[in-house]
Amino acid sequence: MRAYNFSAGPAVLPESVLRQAAAEMLDWHGSGMSVMEMSHRGPEFVAIHAKAEADLRTLLAIPANYRVLFLQGGAIGENAIVPMNLARGFATASYVNTGEWSKKSIKEAGKYLKVAVAASAEDRSFSYVPPQSAWRVAPGSAYVHVCTNETIGGVEYHWTPDTGDVPLVADMSSHILSRAVDVAKYGVIYGGAQKNIGPAGLTIVIVRDDLLDRALPICPSAFHWQEQAAADSMLNTPPTYAIYVAGLVFEWLLAQGGVAAIERRNVAKAKLLYDYLDASAFYRNPVAPADRSRMNVPFRLRDESLDGAFLKGAEERGMLQLKGHRSVGGMRASIYNAMPVEGVQALVDYMREFERRHG
Amino acid sequence: MRAYNFSAGPAVLPESVLRQAAAEMLDWHGSGMSVMEMSHRGPEFVAIHAKAEADLRTLLAIPANYRVLFLQGGAIGENAIVPMNLARGFATASYVNTGEWSKKSIKEAGKYLKVAVAASAEDRSFSYVPPQSAWRVAPGSAYVHVCTNETIGGVEYHWTPDTGDVPLVADMSSHILSRAVDVAKYGVIYGGAQKNIGPAGLTIVIVRDDLLDRALPICPSAFHWQEQAAADSMLNTPPTYAIYVAGLVFEWLLAQGGVAAIERRNVAKAKLLYDYLDASAFYRNPVAPADRSRMNVPFRLRDESLDGAFLKGAEERGMLQLKGHRSVGGMRASIYNAMPVEGVQALVDYMREFERRHG
Repeated sequence: MRAYNFSAGPAVLPESVLRQAAAEMLDWHGSGMSVMEMSHRGPEFVAIHAKAEADLRTLLAIPANYRVLFLQGGAIGENAIVPMNLARGFATASYVNTGEWSKKSIKEAGKYLKVAVAASAEDRSFSYVPPQSAWRVAPGSAYVHVCTNETIGGVEYHWTPDTGDVPLVADMSSHILSRAVDVAKYGVIYGGAQKNIGPAGLTIVIVRDDLLDRALPICPSAFHWQEQAAADSMLNTPPTYAIYVAGLVFEWLLAQGGVAAIERRNVAKAKLLYDYLDASAFYRNPVAPADRSRMNVPFRLRDESLDGAFLKGAEERGMLQLKGHRSVGGMRASIYNAMPVEGVQALVDYMREFERRHG
Repeated sequence: MRAYNFSAGPAVLPESVLRQAAAEMLDWHGSGMSVMEMSHRGPEFVAIHAKAEADLRTLLAIPANYRVLFLQGGAIGENAIVPMNLARGFATASYVNTGEWSKKSIKEAGKYLKVAVAASAEDRSFSYVPPQSAWRVAPGSAYVHVCTNETIGGVEYHWTPDTGDVPLVADMSSHILSRAVDVAKYGVIYGGAQKNIGPAGLTIVIVRDDLLDRALPICPSAFHWQEQAAADSMLNTPPTYAIYVAGLVFEWLLAQGGVAAIERRNVAKAKLLYDYLDASAFYRNPVAPADRSRMNVPFRLRDESLDGAFLKGAEERGMLQLKGHRSVGGMRASIYNAMPVEGVQALVDYMREFERRHG
């Protein structure tokens, strides 16, 4: 039986995508090969790759002056790859610190340039997004970096920063494709695929053309955006199977009605869970209501000695991976695109039942 | 129908592995999740990861003072990652140039230190491995780098270099697990998985403990061997599904009798094809017989105007991806572990038939 899987990533995928991947595993479309066995330069995989990119462009309405790259290394890899690709001619970059993922980005960037923290939410335990009026972008910054959804803290930007002529770079790993985004407001958007897109091992980079000529000489070719853009992401062998599965997810999203339709569902799913959390004194979510993530909902039981019993009961009911990140404890429900509303309803029903029993 | 797939990589996988992956796609071992959907820190995936590493250690008899890392970026990524991890305190590294893959490694390494070419086979069109007596390792080299199987040129080391106290670093991407190897003779062994192991997107690094403290400060954390070794390759989210499939391939190899048994089969498969090539004046292989690859067999038709007809006939008979690399032309048959002897026999039979018809 398929469980309701609340993992923060790698995370739940649409069941129809998994069924199709299983059915095509030994012989893709009569080719006599699994997608895993195809040369990345053969006509079959080149078509799979091109379709995935075209569908992603449709889903996010990516303007023509942006390149889409399918790379490797995940967001933590990209945390170093971003400055290696953007720092030439600059001494400083500005970072907004909204939590654990921002901190990782800042740590990596410090290897390549001076990091100025434009704003930080550390003063209130990373429970909010600092408003742009409080940002202090360092003069001469190569770019301003934000993490638009903090997977661990459960904090999300529900507005788009305006950094003027300074390129805005966003790690969108854990909410990309969950909501409409105006790509033209960003210089670079990147994300690991394993939260809202597909299998771990694929990194998506969307980069504006004019930012392709700023790489440091030490940037490895495999992670060099300009070289990869010139080679259609095939300078090295791309993670072909992960791209194929991501492509199936893109097709599924289009069939659902695209990003606008999935966003409406995500709003409803998040409201269901937050409304219950706010109505209950038994559970609590620490994030400022205006900045709460629709994708990752951390919560705590008032009586944390019940954590083990809560998780055990959830698992017995087929609700998996609700344990919070080891750095913060408590619970976390990740309710990505592929989590059906029925899964969120089942969770709320169980939380209510558990509260009745132990409250 | 499953074809005989001679792709150089991504390449053929054992059919039983694909069948198992398909059967387990929606629900791995009653967990209610696909392997793609599992948190990399959950007990299910941690067990899959540990089993894959243990089986690889068994297959290659990896000594206890070596760490096994499951990373990303492929061999071209690793070409930069190797010097970023080994160059601290050194100005120079020595490289042996046996063809296209060596050249790529040399190009990347030049971003981080001075590259001394210890020996090159370019004088005879990369058709042989320079004997060690001809190598000139630069004094004070951080390491000596070799590519022990050149996928494009079809040249393979059938002996192990002895570089004394200077660590030997080997790109084994396209023949790892095809033959016994004395790991203790190497400082570092690395390879992309997509040739002889599993899906593209997984890089395997086997590194001796005492080499873990030489990384440059600019080395990204995601590719920092010491940090990844300390985190059991989970500093960032690993390519979980690719590791799972690689683990199935390792189990398949053990069931075949391990590396010694597969090596005997590989010797027989290669002999079948090379014996026919040598007996025929219609086809030719350019590599010195002592240095021919058991994995990648490039060959040319005497009359290259027949190339198209040859490839078309092969495809009609279910023999795919025999076209040579675009940089060298001609044909190439990659006959990795998962290529059954029947596939090589079918190829030889077809080559003989084609020769009779056109010779």
